[in-house]
Amino acid sequence: MRIAVDAMGTDTRPIADVAGGVMAANEFGDTIVLVGDKTTIEDELKKHDVSAGNVEILHAPKDIAMDEKPADVLKSKGWSSIHVALDAVKTGHADAFVTMGNTGAVHAIATLKTLRRIPGVKRPVLSALFPIMDHRMIFLDVGANTDVKPEWVTQFAMMGSIYAQRVLDYPQPRIALLSNGAENTKGNLLIREASDILTRSKLNFVGNVEPVQLMGSVADVIVMDGFVGNIVLKMFEATTHYVATLIRQEIRGDVISLLGGALARPAFNRIRRRVDTSVIGGAPLLGVNGVVIIGHGQNSATGIKNAIKQARTAVQENVIGAIRSGISQESPSTGVSQNAIDAT
Amino acid sequence: MRIAVDAMGTDTRPIADVAGGVMAANEFGDTIVLVGDKTTIEDELKKHDVSAGNVEILHAPKDIAMDEKPADVLKSKGWSSIHVALDAVKTGHADAFVTMGNTGAVHAIATLKTLRRIPGVKRPVLSALFPIMDHRMIFLDVGANTDVKPEWVTQFAMMGSIYAQRVLDYPQPRIALLSNGAENTKGNLLIREASDILTRSKLNFVGNVEPVQLMGSVADVIVMDGFVGNIVLKMFEATTHYVATLIRQEIRGDVISLLGGALARPAFNRIRRRVDTSVIGGAPLLGVNGVVIIGHGQNSATGIKNAIKQARTAVQENVIGAIRSGISQESPSTGVSQNAIDAT
Repeated sequence: MRIAVDAMGTDTRPIADVAGGVMAANEFGDTIVLVGDKTTIEDELKKHDVSAGNVEILHAPKDIAMDEKPADVLKSKGWSSIHVALDAVKTGHADAFVTMGNTGAVHAIATLKTLRRIPGVKRPVLSALFPIMDHRMIFLDVGANTDVKPEWVTQFAMMGSIYAQRVLDYPQPRIALLSNGAENTKGNLLIREASDILTRSKLNFVGNVEPVQLMGSVADVIVMDGFVGNIVLKMFEATTHYVATLIRQEIRGDVISLLGGALARPAFNRIRRRVDTSVIGGAPLLGVNGVVIIGHGQNSATGIKNAIKQARTAVQENVIGAIRSGISQESPSTGVSQNAIDAT
Repeated sequence: MRIAVDAMGTDTRPIADVAGGVMAANEFGDTIVLVGDKTTIEDELKKHDVSAGNVEILHAPKDIAMDEKPADVLKSKGWSSIHVALDAVKTGHADAFVTMGNTGAVHAIATLKTLRRIPGVKRPVLSALFPIMDHRMIFLDVGANTDVKPEWVTQFAMMGSIYAQRVLDYPQPRIALLSNGAENTKGNLLIREASDILTRSKLNFVGNVEPVQLMGSVADVIVMDGFVGNIVLKMFEATTHYVATLIRQEIRGDVISLLGGALARPAFNRIRRRVDTSVIGGAPLLGVNGVVIIGHGQNSATGIKNAIKQARTAVQENVIGAIRSGISQESPSTGVSQNAIDAT
């Protein structure tokens, strides 16, 4: 297998990106294609043992900063590492793409310029993996689509379920809608309509969940619109950072607590790792014609290696084929008409 | 001043409710009207010193459980403590109402049966107060309206701003919209339209904020639809409880950490108080013809006393008059036409 890895994705580009790629090459035996400026990557590779011969370079003259807007990127950045890598997946030069780069740019270039949508997919969807109490849930949409129709939500559910089954190893993933209450009378219009469609579908829909239930293991695939999903993801991160700040402040509030805090440092380090979503490495962009895993810019080499592991499993388990097949089998009872393909 | 206090609101009804009411009567000197079953309240009052003579009882034969649905309550619970108390405010027998009871029931009875909307108000709105790093923000809507129009959002902003100025003591409250990014190109359709209207209005709109910015003191009035607001509120609570659970688990993970955790207990207790939103006591339902403060069912007597303090400040500072005046001065430039009053 050949996996394209964005060498210019992380905040420490190309250091963690190259290190993670080499780590994966040595551990998994796949060919890792590092994509980015050739000279920069060559220099960085001197620090690593690549004697196994399965690390390649694919030159891309440009890279995309985290704060560049997708619209600007689409206009001016034709030969960025993201664009070149996605082209490589499209032409079969690589089997999957892993990047810690600008999510909006990856979404835009994959959807509009290179891989494009799987026929019948209404909208590709961004996901995130949450490890709550060591139970891994896939959340989607976490930002690709801010205004969503109920039929899209049911496709998000189907694609997320396929990924959860084939890559996250849930035999029969439980799908839930995130809502403001567990009762099916709750929710906004979107959630109430999507809940009706999902209830009538063949998907393993277990109902609506509210945030407190996410902290128990009540479902594996949590579906919402991309506006709510993005805010929920960011609210989780902001709240954990806020609590960490309170802990630092209050531990310094008295001498005994300060001593206690110093002694409890190993526990705090374990907690930090458990709320750090970057350890998982990344999560898929689903609905395009190819495996794409996107992670945080703060990822370490290990995070990147873990993202690559997801990518290779997704290829091995033929996630794309399963989504194509799932879309083609959609019946009117799920609310998604075959005639509607590409009508949107 | 006479403040009606629901004696049957908290999970420990009537214990904390009566204790909080008596505490407020003694501390503020106002007349507290405890509303609920007369015999039950009389029995409970025997535990307290009410020699100042400013605690009254208003009999209500029924009470409403936390899990009762507003629609059922409207049909069958005419003489609940919530209904009787809101009637007392409507008829002028009381100046304000404070309850830790069923939020949906209070909203429904106030809006549809008793106080009703202030003329021109599109939709009454539920709020919550968040003390982040000791900076108090008012969030609204946190649950009254799951599907919202942009003009409603601007009214939420205006009403929240009046409350923040008159009760929370911000001379010029900064209003922000909660979004998935700070740029005004971000957001869903609702937020982008509301952002346009607020930018053109005379309100002190400082732009869109994303969750991480809530943890800094960038704004005082945070506005969103009631679906997002309810989920954000619950996500904050769920995440803080989750982190607390992780701390308990990991502190027990090794003996040194266990010792450290025991020593740091005073710090943890201070943190718990700082993330506990119930200390504030409650937050207003805005847009109805009367001061209504609603709080958590888990509130202590002190929380209830604090909610009563907000209610009396809201009456003293004439929040209702200010909202009436604000609504009547709305101009077409805010996107809210005078002709549209009650058209919805």
